Amino acid sequence: MTTIPSGLLPEGLSDRLPPLAEASAWLARRVLDTVASHGYERVMPPIAEFEDTLVSRLKSMKAQDLVRAIDPVSQRSLALRPDMTAQVGRIAATRLAAAPRPLRLSYAGPVIRLRANQLRPERERFQIGAELIGSDSVAAAVEIVNVAIEALQAAGVTGITIDFTLPDLIDALAAGPLPLAPEEIEAVRAELDAKDAGALAAISPAAAAYLPLIEGTGPFHAAMERLEALNADLGGAIDSRIAGLRAIAKPIGWDISLTLDPTERHGFEYQNWFGFSIFAEGFTGEIGRGGSYAIIRADGSEEPAMGFSLYPDPLIDAGFGGEAPRRLFLPLHHDAARAAQLRAEGWQTVAALTPQENGEALRCSHWLDGTEPRPY
Amino acid sequence: MTTIPSGLLPEGLSDRLPPLAEASAWLARRVLDTVASHGYERVMPPIAEFEDTLVSRLKSMKAQDLVRAIDPVSQRSLALRPDMTAQVGRIAATRLAAAPRPLRLSYAGPVIRLRANQLRPERERFQIGAELIGSDSVAAAVEIVNVAIEALQAAGVTGITIDFTLPDLIDALAAGPLPLAPEEIEAVRAELDAKDAGALAAISPAAAAYLPLIEGTGPFHAAMERLEALNADLGGAIDSRIAGLRAIAKPIGWDISLTLDPTERHGFEYQNWFGFSIFAEGFTGEIGRGGSYAIIRADGSEEPAMGFSLYPDPLIDAGFGGEAPRRLFLPLHHDAARAAQLRAEGWQTVAALTPQENGEALRCSHWLDGTEPRPY
Repeated sequence: MTTIPSGLLPEGLSDRLPPLAEASAWLARRVLDTVASHGYERVMPPIAEFEDTLVSRLKSMKAQDLVRAIDPVSQRSLALRPDMTAQVGRIAATRLAAAPRPLRLSYAGPVIRLRANQLRPERERFQIGAELIGSDSVAAAVEIVNVAIEALQAAGVTGITIDFTLPDLIDALAAGPLPLAPEEIEAVRAELDAKDAGALAAISPAAAAYLPLIEGTGPFHAAMERLEALNADLGGAIDSRIAGLRAIAKPIGWDISLTLDPTERHGFEYQNWFGFSIFAEGFTGEIGRGGSYAIIRADGSEEPAMGFSLYPDPLIDAGFGGEAPRRLFLPLHHDAARAAQLRAEGWQTVAALTPQENGEALRCSHWLDGTEPRPY
Repeated sequence: MTTIPSGLLPEGLSDRLPPLAEASAWLARRVLDTVASHGYERVMPPIAEFEDTLVSRLKSMKAQDLVRAIDPVSQRSLALRPDMTAQVGRIAATRLAAAPRPLRLSYAGPVIRLRANQLRPERERFQIGAELIGSDSVAAAVEIVNVAIEALQAAGVTGITIDFTLPDLIDALAAGPLPLAPEEIEAVRAELDAKDAGALAAISPAAAAYLPLIEGTGPFHAAMERLEALNADLGGAIDSRIAGLRAIAKPIGWDISLTLDPTERHGFEYQNWFGFSIFAEGFTGEIGRGGSYAIIRADGSEEPAMGFSLYPDPLIDAGFGGEAPRRLFLPLHHDAARAAQLRAEGWQTVAALTPQENGEALRCSHWLDGTEPRPY
């Protein structure tokens, strides 16, 4: 066995150091405070659960991607959470089953998976989110999308793009106005993913009827016009979805870019009629995601829900976060009462332990001269 | 296999629900803000590491107590952190090895172990702490003890007791003024733990010389007098420890109870000359702990350090935390600009999604009538 430096961390797991760790905490606070101001109440699920409870609520998670261990108490398999939304759904369906609806819950914490994917090498991520349980209406979607935007803006994020999708649109069309043979559906999905018009048309004449959806992708207003034209051709079969998207987009400010990709499905394995991804200028890959879904109640019935999750790590690593604090060096035998007063005014103080210490080397901008902070 | 309700959690793992989850977040913020105001900068280590890196820095941790998994990338064993202090030590010794000393770092997050112990059935705990790296002097101890007290008081904790200990005192006495045969040391420790004077005296005449340490336990000032009498009998052999304890105790306010148990060792496996436990009125078991220790540098040498960790879960479960927010119901078609203004003033708003909703049932104390909040 080769010797590995004792400070080395496993791939995809990392330390966050000053000042980025503080920026991360600051960003999480701003998001959570915004969400709380809209009435979302905090829940804190445990970091591990029984594997079967967790996996049954995670449609897209494979057991081998989870960090698992045998519980010495129950002899059952435990798994670390790879996602918190499923845990919040479990809480809503069990311990908070009798709480009045709509139920607004928020959460924040680390999530971990054993295997990363090529797109995202990190195996631990920080997740922050809000779930509105008891409704998947357009009004619920309007609230969720706008709270997500407001939370990111409160954290200083600019250049936000929201990409809307209709995760179950193809299923709905295939079961209704644009019938497809069951064996054709996956091929149609794949070519819509690839935006390959030629290959889509080549599947079958029935599949070719889905061509307008490729054109219904792009900047929101132009894409909506093409989706509306398709709807007209279908005799208004997707009227409610069109109206829903229009209503959700309406209150969103001019400073947010809106796009539409009605057949986007990656990352929307459990969403139904509505989904959205959040992007920010300068960051490849989404920084958040949300939409409508169903929670499985204890009796097996379904309850509608709407929510979003943010994965702010890329933002933090890019330096989003509060301004640097003012650091004040306190020499030996300083005025302790004055130092306490200055801390209450927002100073961070660094007290000397020995006569030799140099406040500037400890990155202080000022030192306490009697009762006054003096710049170095 | 019996059917287990899908909402059930493994023993020792639990959900924290409103309003306790919010109280938990509030308490953590107050502690972290206090610690930051004294110049401690945040670090965020990952939730999992290579098992050997983690265990080598955790003297008292058995591998079977850890949640472990084989890393599919490196084929090495990963372990979830059961403690964050060791991770902060690793960071100080590696990535921050060149940062100026004293280095002040803070941290907060979940820690988990696979096996709980009888005293503490919970397997996941929240840990918050601060470490001062580069000194284990009396001045460092004064700072750490007082920052810990200030942080708890900022979070509203009253009735605080600090119990001081001298973790390596017996080793120091046995190697010097009160020699013991190597095979006697463990027996002397055990009888001192049990405070059993008869059994201690029965070990040997050498062991009987440790009897005054049993009397040197209890309320700080009385216990110190007995420890000082022993020190006088030993010709001042523990002068520096006596002076250290006196200096640490001196600035602590009258509202804090101080006790001394000079031979207490449980939970102080890696501390050396100084340790302390924190208790609060009405809570059985300690809510925090700290002391002096050594960090192993990359070259194998040792660096002195001083720190504390809090485990605030019992406080939170008892309801410590901020006051309940004011919740304001927003009927359909409310004045959105006014609602935003009220949120900025500290209201939490709950927006109606349908005409049927009842704000009182959603636990709102007020509703927005035009531009004015009205009580229900």
